[in-house]
Amino acid sequence: MKHHYDNEKHQVAVDCIVFGFEKDKLKLLLIKRDFQPEKGHWSLMGGFVGKEESLDEAAHRVLFELTGLKNIFLEQLYAFGNVHRDPAERTISVAYYSLIQIDDHNIQLTNDYYAKWIDIEELPELIFDHHDMVDLARSHLISKASHFPVGFELLPEKFSMPELQSLYEAIFDKKLDKRNFIRKITALDILVKLDEKKSGAGLKKAYLYQFNEEKYLKLLKTGNRFSIQP
Amino acid sequence: MKHHYDNEKHQVAVDCIVFGFEKDKLKLLLIKRDFQPEKGHWSLMGGFVGKEESLDEAAHRVLFELTGLKNIFLEQLYAFGNVHRDPAERTISVAYYSLIQIDDHNIQLTNDYYAKWIDIEELPELIFDHHDMVDLARSHLISKASHFPVGFELLPEKFSMPELQSLYEAIFDKKLDKRNFIRKITALDILVKLDEKKSGAGLKKAYLYQFNEEKYLKLLKTGNRFSIQP
Repeated sequence: MKHHYDNEKHQVAVDCIVFGFEKDKLKLLLIKRDFQPEKGHWSLMGGFVGKEESLDEAAHRVLFELTGLKNIFLEQLYAFGNVHRDPAERTISVAYYSLIQIDDHNIQLTNDYYAKWIDIEELPELIFDHHDMVDLARSHLISKASHFPVGFELLPEKFSMPELQSLYEAIFDKKLDKRNFIRKITALDILVKLDEKKSGAGLKKAYLYQFNEEKYLKLLKTGNRFSIQP
Repeated sequence: MKHHYDNEKHQVAVDCIVFGFEKDKLKLLLIKRDFQPEKGHWSLMGGFVGKEESLDEAAHRVLFELTGLKNIFLEQLYAFGNVHRDPAERTISVAYYSLIQIDDHNIQLTNDYYAKWIDIEELPELIFDHHDMVDLARSHLISKASHFPVGFELLPEKFSMPELQSLYEAIFDKKLDKRNFIRKITALDILVKLDEKKSGAGLKKAYLYQFNEEKYLKLLKTGNRFSIQP
């Protein structure tokens, strides 16, 4: 057996996959690298883990430095450790992922940072294995959104039923039957219908809803589970 | 933004959490460390990631070196990265987990290696944050066993219904109603009942069953899912 200290050290990075939802589209936050050797190429928000910070702390710091985003819920996704994933020098990268409401953070982002929201269906080439990271995060998102009410994190606090449906269609990358979708959501009984309609230009204005944590806990107590399948 | 090469390097380890099932008990494979500074303390099977191996390769090598186990399905669980988790020197550890059939590997283990199967209900003190790793792996196992037929990986190829039930009881750490359990399993229609009974001393011998991959795929095609809830 090897002695405790007789071993290699490695560069360790974190990469952040941030999903948002806007105008019926699932989006991904990306930046153009401004340093060599990947200057000008699109990338997830990534950086190296420092000596005195945990992986979680590094992920929050890197995301903040590159986008200004703070107090974001980040969940660890997977550690990517293939030897040559970064051709310049071996780097093990721990990927984190997050769902945010674009409206809450948009102005700040576009003014002060190079980070940009890109349609998930129109992604540019990404460096290294960042496409693998995004693919894994997407299947994770599909699975989570099927079994837990995480999708609501991507919507504003008040949303219409058509907005909720188009969020799920964007996550699943699949059209859903409207009647069936409303029936399923209604049966879960985790929303509160507000006495308020969506503002905007359309003639037929949809009622607004809110996700209700208490109702959701009540659902779980009955032994049932949230379930919206693709 | 920092220059690409201007950064700390870290020790990176892998730790393997291996679950087994024997005589109605869920078990965990552990070893007693035989080197300082943790000599004599119980630990998961762990070791450092080498320069020219991926994280997956390191996990397989370490498990093989410490237990002789080969061609085991290992799944990455989580990267543990708190700064002081190893008090001697900062080490980021990527935890892997596995389910194996104890019978297939037992003789080899007890003869040639220090690794030992320990009842999950009677775990000794473990070094570092290995208890956190085991806790996370257990909740992962509960969630996986609820939604996917992974539990069968812990059973011999042929098993009786009481054996299957006691496996699920061990995973969930909870007694299950026999009638209800059989009803649920039967409704899934993913087992083949064999024309063969369990050998042994008991008077009332139970029929043996086999998990059937084709039947499981058929279940998925109908839009239904495997589901055994705690």
